[in-house]
Amino acid sequence: MRVTEDGSRAPQQDRSRATRQRLLEAAVDCLAEVGWTGSTVAVVAERAGVSRGAAQHHFPTREDLFTAAIPYVTEQRIAGLAERLGTLPAGRARTAAVVDMIGAMFTGKLFRAALQLWVAASSDEQLRAQIVPLEAQLGRECHRLVVDALGADESVPGVRESIQATLDMARGFGLANLLTDDSKRRARVLSVWADALDRALAG
Amino acid sequence: MRVTEDGSRAPQQDRSRATRQRLLEAAVDCLAEVGWTGSTVAVVAERAGVSRGAAQHHFPTREDLFTAAIPYVTEQRIAGLAERLGTLPAGRARTAAVVDMIGAMFTGKLFRAALQLWVAASSDEQLRAQIVPLEAQLGRECHRLVVDALGADESVPGVRESIQATLDMARGFGLANLLTDDSKRRARVLSVWADALDRALAG
Repeated sequence: MRVTEDGSRAPQQDRSRATRQRLLEAAVDCLAEVGWTGSTVAVVAERAGVSRGAAQHHFPTREDLFTAAIPYVTEQRIAGLAERLGTLPAGRARTAAVVDMIGAMFTGKLFRAALQLWVAASSDEQLRAQIVPLEAQLGRECHRLVVDALGADESVPGVRESIQATLDMARGFGLANLLTDDSKRRARVLSVWADALDRALAG
Repeated sequence: MRVTEDGSRAPQQDRSRATRQRLLEAAVDCLAEVGWTGSTVAVVAERAGVSRGAAQHHFPTREDLFTAAIPYVTEQRIAGLAERLGTLPAGRARTAAVVDMIGAMFTGKLFRAALQLWVAASSDEQLRAQIVPLEAQLGRECHRLVVDALGADESVPGVRESIQATLDMARGFGLANLLTDDSKRRARVLSVWADALDRALAG
């Protein structure tokens, strides 16, 4: 709890922020589980244990709610990932570990939620206009994270494209894992890919 | 027109088959453009220029229609692709051409339609049960097509996984291309990947 001069408004601000965060987390859970059509602000509010009025105070429309939820949860994941990646020793084992983490990141709940939003936006011009700049920004942050984690030198020919290929592949794994558990096959492909990427990084 | 012994039923059978094919093609167009929620049998029938009654005679439910449409159009694409791939000279240029064709296959209308169906199935148990075996079969056919086109020897360590990686990457390209034109970036990544795949094929 923050301490302020008047000592009275901070708890209310904290509660408001906590409510907002609960709504954002619940929005991602909902979207991943019941899809875009079923994920109304009312459904998310109920799941978050927040009154419908309070939910609509924070997010007047579900477009507002979901275009805030996906980057919020993504930034959290990226921060968590960055922390873990920073502890890995350099070399081939690190490349394999980074590749594994990327594979895991694109097959979880957050990917399923984002996929619902992308597909909804593909036939909804207004939603698309909100999603496209957001996706571009998250894509750049993800790419930067992987470059840093690998200690990659993108001035070496082919390195930048190999890192992009890794992220494209991870997105493909996410789709392949949508309806069935694809983890065994994915582990085999990622193992071969980590070796190929390690060679590409060496130039 | 087929000639039969009684000479009278063949035109009607041909008309029925043509109606069915028009519905299947229109179903994929519809699904790719307006999404799963908006793609009812009635909407598809209107687009195909077929009466609602005739459409429901062929496909009682929209699950019937779409689980028939995706494999029908996919088989057609695979057949077309197999024909083109068969004419390519062996070697590095063929690898690049095959990789390009796979990239193109996963970014078109058929991919957009299939994506809508996958995402709908992810929160619909009944649809999922119909889609999973169908996807597994098409996945195997696609893999076989690429192995044949590349003249790849899957007993060489890493070759099978490298071909799977190519298809996973192509699925990822499809997603990256959903909301914006990603063709320039994709071409650069595919060009670097074609070289890496060519080295992997050589063992």
